[in-house]
Amino acid sequence: MPRSRMSLIVVFLLTVGCLAFLAPSLCSADDPNVREQAAIHKLMDTQQAAWNSGDLDTFMTVYWHSPDVTFSGSSGVVRGWDAVLTRYKKSYADREAMGQLQFSALEYRSLGPDAALLLGHWHLTRAKGDLGGVFSLVWQRFPEGWRIIHDHTSAVDGAK
Amino acid sequence: MPRSRMSLIVVFLLTVGCLAFLAPSLCSADDPNVREQAAIHKLMDTQQAAWNSGDLDTFMTVYWHSPDVTFSGSSGVVRGWDAVLTRYKKSYADREAMGQLQFSALEYRSLGPDAALLLGHWHLTRAKGDLGGVFSLVWQRFPEGWRIIHDHTSAVDGAK
Repeated sequence: MPRSRMSLIVVFLLTVGCLAFLAPSLCSADDPNVREQAAIHKLMDTQQAAWNSGDLDTFMTVYWHSPDVTFSGSSGVVRGWDAVLTRYKKSYADREAMGQLQFSALEYRSLGPDAALLLGHWHLTRAKGDLGGVFSLVWQRFPEGWRIIHDHTSAVDGAK
Repeated sequence: MPRSRMSLIVVFLLTVGCLAFLAPSLCSADDPNVREQAAIHKLMDTQQAAWNSGDLDTFMTVYWHSPDVTFSGSSGVVRGWDAVLTRYKKSYADREAMGQLQFSALEYRSLGPDAALLLGHWHLTRAKGDLGGVFSLVWQRFPEGWRIIHDHTSAVDGAK
């Protein structure tokens, strides 16, 4: 094979290789799903950091500020932003009870242009005993951004 | 006031009254939300009737038949249609364990044209002891109809 032809083939292969390598990241920057997922992950980071600073007010900003927001769990359904805050204050009365929160295994699913589902695990590291479990968060997009409109959280024995 | 004018006013008021009375039902027949809610409620009736006949196969048709369907609860996350069926078979091994299922307090929220959230309560009447709790079902519309893509269910002590 002549050298010039071989060079052309090498250049061609390198070009295809580079495009294949770059394409996913180029595409994903424009993918609304990736953008929305990143926005929701950022809000989860906000919640985690707020909890770990004992700042329940900031933690609660991620919930839809409405009498229709709901929180389901082993106590049934709690309805309304104020009631959800009261539940957190009652269940986690002080910094020791709150412990250090860590979310993990976050799993995002788009449900359309203005709704999403996020599954994940939560873990509280505490001197008085760890707690952990799973959650399902239903998100809706409002003019002010994504908010949790429904939270279903369970404690899982093995997740302690 | 002349009689003819008064008759006109009476006819006008009666017409407005009738329209006000009829309008909500006329509108709701065309409201896609009402249609979708009715479709999902019907599937819940199918599930309830199937469970109460001991027919887990029909009960399971309402779940998305996919390895990506998920069921969260106090055992963590179960993933995939087959695994969800296995969980039901293990937790409710016979008709006595299954008991009689009743859904109540169903609460539908549209999440867009092809997604919806349904909250509700479940209760099992059983000779060996009742069970009950709350669930959050995330639905997605497929060409074959609405299916549950995620189920988060909790037992609630007071709901027994």
